[in-house]
Amino acid sequence: MSILENIENNSDLRAVPGEQIPPLCEEIRQFLVEKVSRTGGHIASNLGMVELTVALHRVYDPEKDKILFDVGHQSYVHKLLTGRRSGFDHLRQLDGLAGFPKPCESPADPFVAGHASDSVSLAMGMARARTLQKKDFDVVAVIGDGAMTGGLSFEGLNDAGASHEPLLVILNDNGMSINESVGGISKLLRQARVRPGYLHFKREYRKLKDRMPTLYNTTHWLKENLKRYLMPPGIFEDMGFLYLGPVNGHDELALEEAIRWARELREPVLLHVVTVKGKGYSPAEENPELYHGVDAFDARRGVEPKPASDFSSCFGRTVMELAEKDEKVCAVTAAMESGTGLEGFANRFRDRFFELGIAEEHACAMCGGMASQGMKPIFAVYSTFLQRAYDMLIEDVGLMKLHVVFAVDRAGLVGRDGTTHQGSFDIAYLSSVPGMKIYAPASFAELRSMLKHAVEEETGPVAVRYPRGGEGAYTDDSSAEDAVVLSEGRDLTLVCHGILTNEAISAVRELEKAGISAELVKLNRVFPLPEETVLASLRKTGRLLSVDEACRQGSVGAQILTAAAENGIALRGVRRLDLGTGIVTHGQVEALRSRLGLDAAGIVRAAKELMG
Amino acid sequence: MSILENIENNSDLRAVPGEQIPPLCEEIRQFLVEKVSRTGGHIASNLGMVELTVALHRVYDPEKDKILFDVGHQSYVHKLLTGRRSGFDHLRQLDGLAGFPKPCESPADPFVAGHASDSVSLAMGMARARTLQKKDFDVVAVIGDGAMTGGLSFEGLNDAGASHEPLLVILNDNGMSINESVGGISKLLRQARVRPGYLHFKREYRKLKDRMPTLYNTTHWLKENLKRYLMPPGIFEDMGFLYLGPVNGHDELALEEAIRWARELREPVLLHVVTVKGKGYSPAEENPELYHGVDAFDARRGVEPKPASDFSSCFGRTVMELAEKDEKVCAVTAAMESGTGLEGFANRFRDRFFELGIAEEHACAMCGGMASQGMKPIFAVYSTFLQRAYDMLIEDVGLMKLHVVFAVDRAGLVGRDGTTHQGSFDIAYLSSVPGMKIYAPASFAELRSMLKHAVEEETGPVAVRYPRGGEGAYTDDSSAEDAVVLSEGRDLTLVCHGILTNEAISAVRELEKAGISAELVKLNRVFPLPEETVLASLRKTGRLLSVDEACRQGSVGAQILTAAAENGIALRGVRRLDLGTGIVTHGQVEALRSRLGLDAAGIVRAAKELMG
Repeated sequence: MSILENIENNSDLRAVPGEQIPPLCEEIRQFLVEKVSRTGGHIASNLGMVELTVALHRVYDPEKDKILFDVGHQSYVHKLLTGRRSGFDHLRQLDGLAGFPKPCESPADPFVAGHASDSVSLAMGMARARTLQKKDFDVVAVIGDGAMTGGLSFEGLNDAGASHEPLLVILNDNGMSINESVGGISKLLRQARVRPGYLHFKREYRKLKDRMPTLYNTTHWLKENLKRYLMPPGIFEDMGFLYLGPVNGHDELALEEAIRWARELREPVLLHVVTVKGKGYSPAEENPELYHGVDAFDARRGVEPKPASDFSSCFGRTVMELAEKDEKVCAVTAAMESGTGLEGFANRFRDRFFELGIAEEHACAMCGGMASQGMKPIFAVYSTFLQRAYDMLIEDVGLMKLHVVFAVDRAGLVGRDGTTHQGSFDIAYLSSVPGMKIYAPASFAELRSMLKHAVEEETGPVAVRYPRGGEGAYTDDSSAEDAVVLSEGRDLTLVCHGILTNEAISAVRELEKAGISAELVKLNRVFPLPEETVLASLRKTGRLLSVDEACRQGSVGAQILTAAAENGIALRGVRRLDLGTGIVTHGQVEALRSRLGLDAAGIVRAAKELMG
Repeated sequence: MSILENIENNSDLRAVPGEQIPPLCEEIRQFLVEKVSRTGGHIASNLGMVELTVALHRVYDPEKDKILFDVGHQSYVHKLLTGRRSGFDHLRQLDGLAGFPKPCESPADPFVAGHASDSVSLAMGMARARTLQKKDFDVVAVIGDGAMTGGLSFEGLNDAGASHEPLLVILNDNGMSINESVGGISKLLRQARVRPGYLHFKREYRKLKDRMPTLYNTTHWLKENLKRYLMPPGIFEDMGFLYLGPVNGHDELALEEAIRWARELREPVLLHVVTVKGKGYSPAEENPELYHGVDAFDARRGVEPKPASDFSSCFGRTVMELAEKDEKVCAVTAAMESGTGLEGFANRFRDRFFELGIAEEHACAMCGGMASQGMKPIFAVYSTFLQRAYDMLIEDVGLMKLHVVFAVDRAGLVGRDGTTHQGSFDIAYLSSVPGMKIYAPASFAELRSMLKHAVEEETGPVAVRYPRGGEGAYTDDSSAEDAVVLSEGRDLTLVCHGILTNEAISAVRELEKAGISAELVKLNRVFPLPEETVLASLRKTGRLLSVDEACRQGSVGAQILTAAAENGIALRGVRRLDLGTGIVTHGQVEALRSRLGLDAAGIVRAAKELMG
């Protein structure tokens, strides 16, 4: 690591002689594999970003210029080169280095970046702010081909292309994103990748302008009319960008040259860079999807796939059973086939499986269209990403009371991905969708029952929200009723739902030892609130302790208080444990729960405070 | 009206001989101008849709096939031709014909359609449901060039183009949408409109395939390589569509022919139709923007523009004053320059005005980018359309606590546009955005003060929500405090905010006459709730009557109850007046308020019930 070790800042990197760049990149790859194999994290995408990041940092000043990574999990090399090398020992751990850009970590991170497709919009905002304030910095958005298919990117590109704002959009095209990219644009990029050499032609041609202006002008008409043939992804030039590429994303010198040229053009430029996900670490090159986001693994042996036993895989199996029985059942996902446990379904029911790429809005509205014609679509989606479809939930599903089932995975704390990925808001936003019902299983058995109920017995929009990871000690199925009293008590009413049921059960036992008799009410349906059971308990105990792995606003705790006041119940004491504003940093789920007081110990503590 | 009068159903229309179609279209135009000038409604877009709709109805069976209008305000001719002629006497009135498609009105309306850009997604869902169920119907999405620039359209087109599902997307290109379209795609379409004749070439060329297969094959290579030159909007073919057009949207015969051909292709087809907004009614042709959505007018004299005196124009004037004082103030809008009152600003501060087309998501994220670099962006947007930016509110503004001001116009009841346009949800969704504050002016003076405060004194995300239309009798400015007691009382606490303050004040007077002493608390900041003032009043009166022009979930009433219960206040009685699920039909605002019990009479009634 002799070269990397001596790079403390941007000047050091720029001082590295050209011939030492390839060995430096090799060192960076070794560093990434060594560190990420110990901590877990995003590895394949970052291995593909080594030369591109080095080139960006040699052309731009990362603390003055704004480099936006879309999505942010491809920013490891950027972090490594901006003074955060030592942070990789505690990557994605509580109080450790974040796995996504974080402005509070470094001035080189201009923005948080977790959800896909927003980089061009952010870049446009920054570029306009620069121009209006007559400041001097460059703006670069680095966006994967997967994120490029999101509608937000299109809106951003459409505006940027017509704006004449100098800005550079780098399409980091690894031909697959999280899953194999889908849709027409993806096909188009595949065509482009097989026709290199255009960049060189274009550059040489431009030189004519100065050298032989007459010839340049004479040939301009011809060129304009031929360019669509010469330059396959005409879509970007159609939108007003200067298109450069494709460039080999592992040729640092070529990248530097292309980026410098792009910067000089002082126009909206799209640079198409072709990279290999997992580049340089053969297990990841061979099976990049397995190396997208990983837990710790043995770097020599590689990641060993093990059969998943988590809520997602339980969901995947259950949906297959439902589809076996009913030909109307379909599964829809937005670039999360593997993450949501739908691989088996995709193989078994190919014609009823729809992987739509990063396009949650389209996925939601498409489900509305399907449901309006009698199909039973199940949209499997992470809580945090479904936020993007809020308008479609209302307009294309809720208003027509359509029977679309939302399998809301990664609800509540997701852990190490951190701030932008926590499933904090789903209860709040889903409960404002007309006609929506929300169920929250605490065990695999309950997920099975609730999903079955949602698909076979409900009629309007219905969501089943479940956490990342596996079940705990609680493996029962109490879902026959919307709310159940798991244990009776007289001092206070402890209301829980979902995975925190485990913590609540432990807490009740602890409290019993301390002489506090807590009545444990478990909600199976969290919206609309099953008022009767909850209010009966509150009337008995007079005290509420609610436990929500959700933001406070719109939480179950808030709903209970609303119902209590509406029914004239005066409470002697209230404590609400929840995710507050919904902003929760990265770290292991257990560590986060402990810090937030959402574990058994925290519940016990809150109960004691409530009693005394 | 001799031809139109005899058309009761689709068979009648199909039986009209070709030579009678132009006079029929003329009759339809007369009908539209006559009726809409009496009731008000969307006129310019529908005048442009006459021939296209007639052609669609002569090719397709509107009750079997699915014709989706995007957005639905261009469906008047469709309604007229599907047995709803008599409904036009009560267009957009309470219990009258809706101004947008409504499945409950007719089997010819396959979906509600109010928000832009969702038609391709819905069409894809319907097409897939059809194919999976082996049903026999066609699916057509008719989408304006304005709606086409929304990211959701792009996601839908990208999926549709790669799907091989037979479906027809008709681009109704009137070159302006609500405002002049913006962005790169719009420029592209302008180029396309000047190069007709391609459709004819393409059709003739296809015939070769059967007649002279060898020649066809020989020329195929040539054609493939030339097609980008011949067919300007390559973007659609890039995405996998067969592109046909442009076709003159006022030549019914040509349209019928193109649509029949498109239907035969059994592939995803994009038919580019060029129409003239306002066609056939010269005042609307000359000034289509003035005739987008109109109140009743004299058909002979045309719409007479009058100086607006409403919250939107007050907003527009105030923003200009703020921008005059502070160079960092910018205004951003998504296709609503005129609707949000920003025309003056656009003229005066051209470089600080950003009209981004139908692209609320991009607009919101772009504001985040601007704010991160020290500008003060104000995003003026209708409550119902800001729903689409929910994810960006959280991820691109809230998480970074960025100072973006949201001028939330058309909050609460909007009246005649109805279900898809009511501003029902903004308090619910905005209050879950980390760090968001929401202010609600009841008068122009308060809008001015609150906006000034939001721009000059706040630091994080802040929303000012105000209604469609003008102020009422209340013209004071009580915004110095977050909540004020407008009149003291002892029997019950009446909590109001925004425009309903007028109704509440009247109600308090009425109640006084009836011997009921209501304490009127007016909230200026509706989130976070100014608890102290509200709870002090509740402790005094023991009864809550809340009045919210917002959906119940997440409403101010719900927040007050949460706070009351959390603070151990036992209420003797509670009544909440609000918009329920948020689904509210069309009709005059006053009529809707009366029906929903949100007017003074309704408040009085509820108060009396509350008192026993």
